[in-house]
Amino acid sequence: MPERPLRALLFDVFGTVVDWRRGVIEAARALAGERGHDVDWGAFADAWRREGYLEPIAQIVTGARPFTPVEVLLGEVLPALAARHRLGLGTNELGELVSAWRRLPPWPDAKGGLERLRRRHLVAPLSNGSFAQLTEMAKRAELPWDCIISTELFVAYKPDAATYRGAIRLLDLDPDEVMLVAAHPIDLRAGAACGLRSAYVPRPEEWGPATGPPAPPDPGFDVVAPDLEALAGMLDDPGWDRPSRPGARR
Amino acid sequence: MPERPLRALLFDVFGTVVDWRRGVIEAARALAGERGHDVDWGAFADAWRREGYLEPIAQIVTGARPFTPVEVLLGEVLPALAARHRLGLGTNELGELVSAWRRLPPWPDAKGGLERLRRRHLVAPLSNGSFAQLTEMAKRAELPWDCIISTELFVAYKPDAATYRGAIRLLDLDPDEVMLVAAHPIDLRAGAACGLRSAYVPRPEEWGPATGPPAPPDPGFDVVAPDLEALAGMLDDPGWDRPSRPGARR
Repeated sequence: MPERPLRALLFDVFGTVVDWRRGVIEAARALAGERGHDVDWGAFADAWRREGYLEPIAQIVTGARPFTPVEVLLGEVLPALAARHRLGLGTNELGELVSAWRRLPPWPDAKGGLERLRRRHLVAPLSNGSFAQLTEMAKRAELPWDCIISTELFVAYKPDAATYRGAIRLLDLDPDEVMLVAAHPIDLRAGAACGLRSAYVPRPEEWGPATGPPAPPDPGFDVVAPDLEALAGMLDDPGWDRPSRPGARR
Repeated sequence: MPERPLRALLFDVFGTVVDWRRGVIEAARALAGERGHDVDWGAFADAWRREGYLEPIAQIVTGARPFTPVEVLLGEVLPALAARHRLGLGTNELGELVSAWRRLPPWPDAKGGLERLRRRHLVAPLSNGSFAQLTEMAKRAELPWDCIISTELFVAYKPDAATYRGAIRLLDLDPDEVMLVAAHPIDLRAGAACGLRSAYVPRPEEWGPATGPPAPPDPGFDVVAPDLEALAGMLDDPGWDRPSRPGARR
């Protein structure tokens, strides 16, 4: 059981708070209009997320590539991807599609869950999205963050330990006063290695509706909640942090 | 007249948005209790602001001293100052007094003005306060910032040009899309030298109620407003930006 009470919750954003896949599909489909009736938009969105985000970020985290802003990563792969998936979009439309990541829709529970969580805790993103992306997204979607923390501030990407340590330093807190909330075990484990508490919020629809059965529960996290409203309910229970309670293992 | 519309308003905080002097006096007086009935609390607050904030920051900006976090600056002068002003506070109480800067009260117009300004514009602090100070202050006072920008992010203090340029870069905006709002002409002029627009909000009571007549109006700023509610009213007028209008000189 930790000495100090929980002060702050840091959230992964793409996949955990917002539905990047639906946002990308809807923005691309709207830009394409009539031209897009034969495109497999889900396959395009999934490929873009992998090739323009996950893979280059992994290269940067391992040191194989220097730090590059996330909107540059998303933009540089887009012409080839758009051609491969026959999107039929022009250069200006592809630029507009990159900015769609600034307008991604939250999951239905996100805004209400954050409103409730922020009554007792500081809430902030800790995301590989850029500071401008996260700020514009929050303003449009009315996500009630207390501040915006982008890993851009540390010239690094999660799961680099510099990002978790940098966020704790900025907030002037100790690691066990902070809980990371994420849909991705790799993120939570890297945060836990820096001393952060962990809340696993699985998002089985992150990669679309037909991704098979949910993963078995992972016993390695402090809290597991199906969504942010449920997480708020769990943390509102004054006993959540006691070892004898289910779902509270410290 | 600028080509681009105004997108973001950046605010000086200590003096412009919050009444640091009243906050410091009330916190110190509360800590001292009975012991403080002979103390000149206003003189103490003014001396602290000068010796623990303005003077060391000026040294850092000119390069005479390396960057040092603002709460270290405020804390390091406090034992000698407290002795000189006969505050009668112990070491723990002086530490508590440093954290009072995280709980400063907004000017009466600040919250309402910001709520109104954020309907059309991104609003954020650009303050020499630390990221943690500004975040905690905003949460307690319910200041509706869209994000928190501390000059700590740029390892520099205003009026260093690196701070204005750093904020513009983080927001991914051009300088003339951003207006700096401040009670201090030196801050506004340094921002304008980096291309930012300027809104002067004089706060004649920043240094207490008995500081003489208000300064004469300074013609060097794009907008002059008596408080943040009035600024919101001026910027809500669609003609504010036209050169023919008084108070809109671009």
